[in-house]
Amino acid sequence: MSETPSLDLLIHELTQLPGVGEKTAQRFSHFILRSGKNYSEKLKLALTAVAEKIHPCSQCFSYTEGEGLCEICSNPHREDHLVCVVEEAFDISKVENSGAFKGRYHVLGGALSPLDGIHPENLKIQELVERVRSTGVKEIILALDADLEGDTTALYLAKVFKEFSIKLTRIAHGVPFGTDIDYIDRRTLGRALENRVEL
Amino acid sequence: MSETPSLDLLIHELTQLPGVGEKTAQRFSHFILRSGKNYSEKLKLALTAVAEKIHPCSQCFSYTEGEGLCEICSNPHREDHLVCVVEEAFDISKVENSGAFKGRYHVLGGALSPLDGIHPENLKIQELVERVRSTGVKEIILALDADLEGDTTALYLAKVFKEFSIKLTRIAHGVPFGTDIDYIDRRTLGRALENRVEL
Repeated sequence: MSETPSLDLLIHELTQLPGVGEKTAQRFSHFILRSGKNYSEKLKLALTAVAEKIHPCSQCFSYTEGEGLCEICSNPHREDHLVCVVEEAFDISKVENSGAFKGRYHVLGGALSPLDGIHPENLKIQELVERVRSTGVKEIILALDADLEGDTTALYLAKVFKEFSIKLTRIAHGVPFGTDIDYIDRRTLGRALENRVEL
Repeated sequence: MSETPSLDLLIHELTQLPGVGEKTAQRFSHFILRSGKNYSEKLKLALTAVAEKIHPCSQCFSYTEGEGLCEICSNPHREDHLVCVVEEAFDISKVENSGAFKGRYHVLGGALSPLDGIHPENLKIQELVERVRSTGVKEIILALDADLEGDTTALYLAKVFKEFSIKLTRIAHGVPFGTDIDYIDRRTLGRALENRVEL
């Protein structure tokens, strides 16, 4: 459709979204065109609102709309000495939904991946160190992804916090709830065996 | 994330896109937030451009940016007596890519589906009738989807054009190129047997 450059541009912009290829972007554009100006306007308003209102919390770097601290950081009923470190702000809702954590959070903004150019200075690691130094944090729980980058970041943080008198833990990796052992890959099973717990 | 209504709204708007659920919309919003205003602005500009510039061709109802007719309708080298009827404008590029068609197109804007409230008057069927009446169309080729709605539309169009002295054909349904018979479902194989061709 070389005669419709504006449509080509929209398709191109949509392919920038994660996991969206040419075909999906075409379907999206198609939907946008069919919905007329209605959907298009709503989406633009939502994009503007997010760009204007959402900013990172000054303590944990999660997203917030208010001034300064986010809801969790400003909640007086949460445990101050427990900090859960996550890669992305969206991971917080996952941990919250588990109902098993009542402390505070710290968003790194990614995981270490030197090959992709993500070094310690690109993440909020220095900010975490300052936070531990200036507040009474007693335990840091790493809720990082169970992949190479997550492992690298966990090892790096272990080195950073070695001299601090705090406990550094990582959420357990093992067989997911409700899963047959048959279907587990060998690396997960390896970790599950390694981290076995006494009954 | 009930404390970030603007983000919730963006996620909601993104779930309106075809095939996008809550999780995918979250990933999209996440990407949009991480890219800062840069991507957001580009996407908004593309949405505005499409909403302002793209309009349906006055003859075939495909998308065009120029005034009046689209590129294919205004091309003097295409065969006037052959019209390929498609459900959506995006289907045209598929037929074009096959390289097997040099006629004109007509976009219905969907397929008949009474249960979803899509009746003949919701499609560009009357416009097709007028077009056949006023121009020298000799054959209409239906390139509709091979599903219930496509079949319904094909049957309806066959009834509409019964009294016209034109040829009404539908693209062949059968075993896709490069496919093992093993992997073909019984309905496709049934159609392929029904529409067998003499060698």
